[in-house]
Amino acid sequence: MTSAVPTALLADRLRRAGEVAADQGVDLLLVTPGTDLRYLIDADGESHERLTCLIVPAAGHRAPPALVVPRLEAPGLAGLPLDDLGVEVVTWTDGEDPYLLVSDLAGGPVRMAVADSMPARHVFGLRDAFPDVAQTLAGPVIRELRMRKDAAEVAQLREAGAAIDRVHARMGEFLRPGRTEAEAGADISAAIVAEGHTCAAFVIVGSGPNGASPHHDVSDRVIERGDVVVVDIGGPLPGGYYSDSTRTYAVGAEPSAAVRETYSVLQAAQERAVQAVRPGVTAQDIDAAAREPITEAGFGPQFVHRTGHGIGLDVHEEPYVVGGNALPLEPGMAFSVEPGIYLDGRWGARIEDIVVVTETGHERLNNRPRDLTVL
Amino acid sequence: MTSAVPTALLADRLRRAGEVAADQGVDLLLVTPGTDLRYLIDADGESHERLTCLIVPAAGHRAPPALVVPRLEAPGLAGLPLDDLGVEVVTWTDGEDPYLLVSDLAGGPVRMAVADSMPARHVFGLRDAFPDVAQTLAGPVIRELRMRKDAAEVAQLREAGAAIDRVHARMGEFLRPGRTEAEAGADISAAIVAEGHTCAAFVIVGSGPNGASPHHDVSDRVIERGDVVVVDIGGPLPGGYYSDSTRTYAVGAEPSAAVRETYSVLQAAQERAVQAVRPGVTAQDIDAAAREPITEAGFGPQFVHRTGHGIGLDVHEEPYVVGGNALPLEPGMAFSVEPGIYLDGRWGARIEDIVVVTETGHERLNNRPRDLTVL
Repeated sequence: MTSAVPTALLADRLRRAGEVAADQGVDLLLVTPGTDLRYLIDADGESHERLTCLIVPAAGHRAPPALVVPRLEAPGLAGLPLDDLGVEVVTWTDGEDPYLLVSDLAGGPVRMAVADSMPARHVFGLRDAFPDVAQTLAGPVIRELRMRKDAAEVAQLREAGAAIDRVHARMGEFLRPGRTEAEAGADISAAIVAEGHTCAAFVIVGSGPNGASPHHDVSDRVIERGDVVVVDIGGPLPGGYYSDSTRTYAVGAEPSAAVRETYSVLQAAQERAVQAVRPGVTAQDIDAAAREPITEAGFGPQFVHRTGHGIGLDVHEEPYVVGGNALPLEPGMAFSVEPGIYLDGRWGARIEDIVVVTETGHERLNNRPRDLTVL
Repeated sequence: MTSAVPTALLADRLRRAGEVAADQGVDLLLVTPGTDLRYLIDADGESHERLTCLIVPAAGHRAPPALVVPRLEAPGLAGLPLDDLGVEVVTWTDGEDPYLLVSDLAGGPVRMAVADSMPARHVFGLRDAFPDVAQTLAGPVIRELRMRKDAAEVAQLREAGAAIDRVHARMGEFLRPGRTEAEAGADISAAIVAEGHTCAAFVIVGSGPNGASPHHDVSDRVIERGDVVVVDIGGPLPGGYYSDSTRTYAVGAEPSAAVRETYSVLQAAQERAVQAVRPGVTAQDIDAAAREPITEAGFGPQFVHRTGHGIGLDVHEEPYVVGGNALPLEPGMAFSVEPGIYLDGRWGARIEDIVVVTETGHERLNNRPRDLTVL
């Protein structure tokens, strides 16, 4: 793999992770493959049976930054700037105990925080190699960094937004009366990849009454003329950052006046919530900005979920745009604004854009029309 | 989600998991989303910040089988035959402690085995809810089942094999002189999805000297006329079972006699190893059957990896076809046979088929020509 992230940015992330760790009373962060590892050193891949683990010492701790990795996998790290980052690569071969290797590098008992996503197999391997050491989670340290996107991350999210917009632009090819949701979904998946994603991570095609279930994916229901269809799609780009955008379509016929009226409530609510995004406003304020007009129009009980979620290397991450989250927004925070109205057994609608907080307001990363487009 | 796996099969898997657990001295298996959960109840999805956890009691244990799940996600389980399986659904909402819920359902201290892939955040949540209980891994229990595929699983692997064969059949569209590996790889990814996979999980396009690195993925190297190119591709079908097949191509020109000669050694070795697959032969025997002809021809040091890996809901799982694995093969075991020869700095070649052990021998699930095809 070759790192697409400037080395200076990675160095800064490692340094700040060490500082936050020290502030939180942690000696070492232990990070296995996953999005935290990708964030810190731009190494992709998933955690497998053999231990790969980055050791990030807290500021002032004696242990060196090191990456423990199976010898066979070391060539795959050739593109990463580990030398420039001062990260020592320590390889191990089958038959060695990689957990004891971590313990040796740590130089003694430490207050250890492991990545939230570290698989149990490795959590227990480390537990046994560090007797009498309480293990805690690294999430509270690393999310302090990941929640605020830097310019390189925003650029990747912007690219992801444009890619999924191109898929929505082609929706007329996919949604047609007489096709099943699953057939349309398969074509949409292929388009998501063709437009630059590595994977169609999720494809919701909720037609007619299925649109009223926010967690629907696809089914064998045949799309009928006049159906309102919720299409919520996204996936990661090669750099790891996710797209996620929802549009609602009317297929084959103009929607009724009643549908148009309800939809216009949703559209106004989504617009109001997006326009409220700026530094200093809290996450719960954005949730309220979306919820109030929907509630005023009498659809409050039909807006059954939070307004949004943070997005980055994970499709759901901090900050969550939800009642009770008093976190003040800061420049670089990126999240979805996606209110919905769900009329049980009949139809549903949702509009979702990814929004990034800027110094003075916000930037929208999804820019397809938000009207109830008739296909 | 709707289960595509017959309910009777799932019931049998749950029952046998309980029996193996009892044999191994485990009271409860605790399984979060991941391939083990998919195997046991056909629930897909990944583990998120909110706990979803299947409780599988050992045979004879007092706790009921139960699925703890966030209330918002419960509608997504509607297609699963949980009632028929006797699995009670226990929902929780934000503000409740789901780990204490598991502890209540367990009815007291238990010998608890957690899924190998359970994220640390949930491992620690359960640890704190079950003080003084040692946590172990559920892998040794569940792999006893997953290693032996039933007819429904073999059918899914067969379908996956046919799907990736269709992508290899189209390779002439993608590999052309003057294109980069990354450009070819993007088209291959789209074709993998178009042919029925949900995702292109891995796409290795190793052209010329890059083919000599078995862990290469794609790069900006321009494919040249006369290059030998290793293409190792695969992904999951909607049912979750993976494809994985490698072919080696010569692009734009006949390969040299020397390349043909080396390749023929590899092809004969792969064929010999596949033909050796039958019940009672050990995994290490298959590794040796591939390795010996390559070693005899003087390329032993250039065959730098194991011969194969099991495949199913994970792309790498038991059994591993590797020296030292004395496991006797049994009907239903499915794995790759993928010897390679890697000439550092020059070129490489690998041939990979998925093979399933049958009552009398084996079935190959990849059937594209194994010659050094000139495109």
